[in-house]
Amino acid sequence: MAESNLQTNTFRVISNYLNTNVLVKMKGNRKVKGVLTSFDQHLNLILDKAEEVGENSSKPIGLVLLRGDNVIAISPVG
Amino acid sequence: MAESNLQTNTFRVISNYLNTNVLVKMKGNRKVKGVLTSFDQHLNLILDKAEEVGENSSKPIGLVLLRGDNVIAISPVG
Amino acid sequence: MAESNLQTNTFRVISNYLNTNVLVKMKGNRKVKGVLTSFDQHLNLILDKAEEVGENSSKPIGLVLLRGDNVIAISPVG
Amino acid sequence: MAESNLQTNTFRVISNYLNTNVLVKMKGNRKVKGVLTSFDQHLNLILDKAEEVGENSSKPIGLVLLRGDNVIAISPVG
Amino acid sequence: MAESNLQTNTFRVISNYLNTNVLVKMKGNRKVKGVLTSFDQHLNLILDKAEEVGENSSKPIGLVLLRGDNVIAISPVG
Amino acid sequence: MAESNLQTNTFRVISNYLNTNVLVKMKGNRKVKGVLTSFDQHLNLILDKAEEVGENSSKPIGLVLLRGDNVIAISPVG
Amino acid sequence: MAESNLQTNTFRVISNYLNTNVLVKMKGNRKVKGVLTSFDQHLNLILDKAEEVGENSSKPIGLVLLRGDNVIAISPVG
Repeated sequence: MAESNLQTNTFRVISNYLNTNVLVKMKGNRKVKGVLTSFDQHLNLILDKAEEVGENSSKPIGLVLLRGDNVIAISPVG
Repeated sequence: MAESNLQTNTFRVISNYLNTNVLVKMKGNRKVKGVLTSFDQHLNLILDKAEEVGENSSKPIGLVLLRGDNVIAISPVG
Repeated sequence: MAESNLQTNTFRVISNYLNTNVLVKMKGNRKVKGVLTSFDQHLNLILDKAEEVGENSSKPIGLVLLRGDNVIAISPVG
Repeated sequence: MAESNLQTNTFRVISNYLNTNVLVKMKGNRKVKGVLTSFDQHLNLILDKAEEVGENSSKPIGLVLLRGDNVIAISPVG
Repeated sequence: MAESNLQTNTFRVISNYLNTNVLVKMKGNRKVKGVLTSFDQHLNLILDKAEEVGENSSKPIGLVLLRGDNVIAISPVG
Repeated sequence: MAESNLQTNTFRVISNYLNTNVLVKMKGNRKVKGVLTSFDQHLNLILDKAEEVGENSSKPIGLVLLRGDNVIAISPVG
Repeated sequence: MAESNLQTNTFRVISNYLNTNVLVKMKGNRKVKGVLTSFDQHLNLILDKAEEVGENSSKPIGLVLLRGDNVIAISPVG
């Protein structure tokens, strides 16, 4: 099983998230929700129509690039 | 013993976990349980039917990508 | 999907920010606003007419290079 | 002395640990004991019949993959 | 847009700072001011006639090499 | 001065420590003393007859592999 | 300006420090002074006749290898 194949596995799954709503958990207890429009192999993410998700409310932040090394988890939002 | 062989060793073991339930311990005292559907050489993981495991209860989070550098340990769940 | 293509995806989006106002959230609760004049693949950023954005006020800092590994998020400013 | 030779030096020693009991000290004051069945050049480790070693007691965790960048020290257990 | 071109973009801007006074913000709330005489692609910096800038006073430290991964921001000093 | 030559410089010095007693200072205020039997380019170290050095006493730990990225300083012990 | 040239710039300056007294500031508020006898591209340093510099006193530590990623700043000592 070549390394490049392994890498492709995960990225093929993320590709399925493209243009759908995702929830991104980041370091420092930050959560951001938005439409995943782009990503790269460092898991740098571009979210559109994004909002920072707080305990009780959300704050719209529009288009945002999230640097991959702050990302902990990415989930599709139903 | 070539580097590429070494790498293959560990990955061959993880491959045995594919499509089975695993428990992932992450930095920041987070635990996630789910069906391992994909991984890559950074230990980025895709879990399906995942749930965040708390002290007394679990919270379903569905499909989730966990970024490898937050992963501490991965165990199969009996 | 080749790695180099993935990388290009994200960078093409950042390129759209060039010469426009962006807000950069950095580690340590720092925010910097300014005109994005340059960036590289580490997300090192050059902002012109930059200002450090505080709770109640902003402090002008002129031209500034921000080292990419301190960057958490980049958003265009409307 | 070529880099690849240097790398080989350390790994040859770890290879001697294979299929024997080792104690792994990890970041965050965690200790795990088990039979080393596999490792790679990042010091990702696979331990079988593993147990998390606490102050006064141990908790069996079966087969476990430990991500290398959390490893501080590895010792054979007599 | 090739990676090497991207890298060049940022470095071309830093090159404009050479032999001029810059203020470097570093991790751990440290600030150093001095004449930028050299830098490399890790943002390792050599400052001459440097001084550590404190709240109320500055302490001269002469020539200094600052390791890039502690650098947060670099600004020209008017 | 080529990079590979630079690397060699430091490693040639460490090679002089081989089979002698060294004191290793590690992150988290840990000190380990032992006979350096092997190292690699990440500064992964193998110490034999090692002991963890505390304030007032030392605890023998036998053979140990120390992961390089936890190493702060290595000194020969007289 | 090629990357390798950039790297060379900084290293040429450090080379001037060879066989002279330098003060090294390290993470965790540690300072070490000594004769720089060797370095490599990770800024791993070998200091001879080194001493750990405290608030009020210094402690001789002889020959020491300092791992580069703990280094914050290097200055020549007059």
